[in-house]
Amino acid sequence: MNQFVDRRGFMTAGAGFLTAIAAPSAASVSDETAFPDSMLVPGVNDAPYGQPSPYETEAVRSISTYGPNSLLSASYAPIHLQRGIITPSGLHFTTHHSGIPDINPDQHALYIHGLTERALKFSVADLLRYPLQGGIHFLECAGNSWRQGLDPSTPPDNTCKDLHGLVSGSEWLGVPVRHLLAEAGLKPNAKWVIAEGADTGSLTRSIPVSKLLDDAIIALYQNGERLRPAQGYPMRLFLPGWEGNTNVKWLRRLEVVDQAAYTKDESRAYTETLADGTIQQFSLQMGVKSVITHPSAGHVLPEKGVYEISGLAWSGHGKIKTVDVSDDGGKSWARAELHAPVLEKSLTRFSLPWKWTGRTADLKSRATDAQGTVQPTHQEWSKLYAPGSYNHYNAIQTWQVAGTGGVRNVF
Amino acid sequence: MNQFVDRRGFMTAGAGFLTAIAAPSAASVSDETAFPDSMLVPGVNDAPYGQPSPYETEAVRSISTYGPNSLLSASYAPIHLQRGIITPSGLHFTTHHSGIPDINPDQHALYIHGLTERALKFSVADLLRYPLQGGIHFLECAGNSWRQGLDPSTPPDNTCKDLHGLVSGSEWLGVPVRHLLAEAGLKPNAKWVIAEGADTGSLTRSIPVSKLLDDAIIALYQNGERLRPAQGYPMRLFLPGWEGNTNVKWLRRLEVVDQAAYTKDESRAYTETLADGTIQQFSLQMGVKSVITHPSAGHVLPEKGVYEISGLAWSGHGKIKTVDVSDDGGKSWARAELHAPVLEKSLTRFSLPWKWTGRTADLKSRATDAQGTVQPTHQEWSKLYAPGSYNHYNAIQTWQVAGTGGVRNVF
Repeated sequence: MNQFVDRRGFMTAGAGFLTAIAAPSAASVSDETAFPDSMLVPGVNDAPYGQPSPYETEAVRSISTYGPNSLLSASYAPIHLQRGIITPSGLHFTTHHSGIPDINPDQHALYIHGLTERALKFSVADLLRYPLQGGIHFLECAGNSWRQGLDPSTPPDNTCKDLHGLVSGSEWLGVPVRHLLAEAGLKPNAKWVIAEGADTGSLTRSIPVSKLLDDAIIALYQNGERLRPAQGYPMRLFLPGWEGNTNVKWLRRLEVVDQAAYTKDESRAYTETLADGTIQQFSLQMGVKSVITHPSAGHVLPEKGVYEISGLAWSGHGKIKTVDVSDDGGKSWARAELHAPVLEKSLTRFSLPWKWTGRTADLKSRATDAQGTVQPTHQEWSKLYAPGSYNHYNAIQTWQVAGTGGVRNVF
Repeated sequence: MNQFVDRRGFMTAGAGFLTAIAAPSAASVSDETAFPDSMLVPGVNDAPYGQPSPYETEAVRSISTYGPNSLLSASYAPIHLQRGIITPSGLHFTTHHSGIPDINPDQHALYIHGLTERALKFSVADLLRYPLQGGIHFLECAGNSWRQGLDPSTPPDNTCKDLHGLVSGSEWLGVPVRHLLAEAGLKPNAKWVIAEGADTGSLTRSIPVSKLLDDAIIALYQNGERLRPAQGYPMRLFLPGWEGNTNVKWLRRLEVVDQAAYTKDESRAYTETLADGTIQQFSLQMGVKSVITHPSAGHVLPEKGVYEISGLAWSGHGKIKTVDVSDDGGKSWARAELHAPVLEKSLTRFSLPWKWTGRTADLKSRATDAQGTVQPTHQEWSKLYAPGSYNHYNAIQTWQVAGTGGVRNVF
């Protein structure tokens, strides 16, 4: 029998049950009236741009570079510490192929040319005149969770952050690309657009025109402020639900063409070898996925008792419909609560109270999106791809809680 | 006749209309192929905690202190630059009475005592065991827009930021207070709770128990990370829709009592003198309000043509239902678009395309909330309060666009 706690029961339960969650101490009058240091020492004034608490030393990204002199790097977001669906911009994951360029926005321009009636050049100031659209969306690296896919027989001994930290959620706003393409005037044979970044590696991807006429934006704002340099300042392409690298940062050029360019970034990288040996290219939409962020590998449960299982679910195909959670390795499932707002192509927070009895427990979460697509098991996912293929890993994650309270990654 | 542009027409219009928005330049092949410096100079690697672009020097708070040695200060958020509904935590407004204290979370505790069955003490670790709830909500200082209310006959010559920047929007998550009160056990005569902060001024407010049993949380997270020191680290009371100072920062004590305490913070401060001379206390909910953030005082329209009017609306009573916009000083009104998501007690983004003909235009926005309450005019608001009373100013804002394109505050 699983040990999930009925949410309605939980929310209406009295003190007896709630005490099972935590163990507050009895307080005495001397506690309540003793002034802490913070009430005796004057505070300090605010800064023009605020910073996090210096005590939160764990809330940083871990940065992994390809080698000591390499500018190919990934910064893993501490998703095991995130609550809610917004990732602070300073903790948003990044994947850089050539480092972060320094771009003066007054000298930057976006060109639209190729199979158009006219070639156009947009300054940042030009773009800021347009109506802005967008919303709260997830962004995920195609290679997120790559350690899980690389060798399907050996579960890596890593934390939730290092396994799944290449996904984040933000409010992204910018100019709908369809407005700019309408101004340039698409020729009848316009089928793809080559999007090029202004970094030294000029990361370049081919995007079908249909996506650009749908919900694509030239993003200028993230979480209420202008993009940060690591996110493509002064502008990036943002394609809700599509793999991270197609959201080209430091965007300088959209060249309209009649066929995909098969650039290095979509031939050498960001392709997958399937089980039958064929190469999958242009696997652009991110699949339905979820991960329990708490508890997860790296956490230790201090004692038996009730915990809140909390995690994130998302799908490149639309909204999350349901998330089910298991504590017995998938034999039985309980429906998690989805926290409002549940948005299109956005991180969605789920949770479920759970009682740890002290026995070994295999925790899993399984998301289903609005199209009805269900997250695959690790075994199902592994059968689709050739050994060594690791992009687009979206299988159900299993965290094993040991009798000691330690949590680790298992398949 | 007003000069608002039909949104449906706008969204489906072809190149001819869109060109009215901005003026992209014709591009040539030499433009498109000339490499900018950023493609020639290697980039840099990422930092564990990212920062905004150094070019965005305007995107900072302006800090106003009561005097050179005073720790009574306000930091105004640059809402004229914000897009969307999330304010980055580093730009969230603050109002401090005694500066920001330095609190080690391992030494901090929350006490619940008074008219309860038992007195309880919660460490941060205790609270982190509970299920977290919350959502995306606005927070507004009771004194926001005070310069507008202080002397109703003289419009201050200030920017949108300095007039209205004491409001922000964030995702706030924490432990529902009702769970903790249930554990402590309320006695029958429990009517109010005195909430005390652990700063040197021990900011203290009386909160009706009914609000604490409704949607109040002990907030631990803002925008996906732990609260920042300026926002009450390690914990604050968060009361969706209620005036800023009741959301007590650095919260250390909830004392359950049978009547309000009439503390200095609710007798000397945060009261309003009404037109008939009576004093209004415990004016806790924030009214329905809106402000056009772009264009607004401080902006200059560079030329005639189409602009996007964009602004923020909010209400402490629930969702925003509609926002109407006028460009002729309130003679005629057009319905603005509300951008999804429209959430309870949250900033809501509205926008409407508008054509500036070069003539003087008086721009106004008027919000109506889900209860049907309509934002008052400046004249209506001013009749309610005695001269010199300035809290809870929520009147319709008028920005006058002059023939020069300059924008200023008028009544």
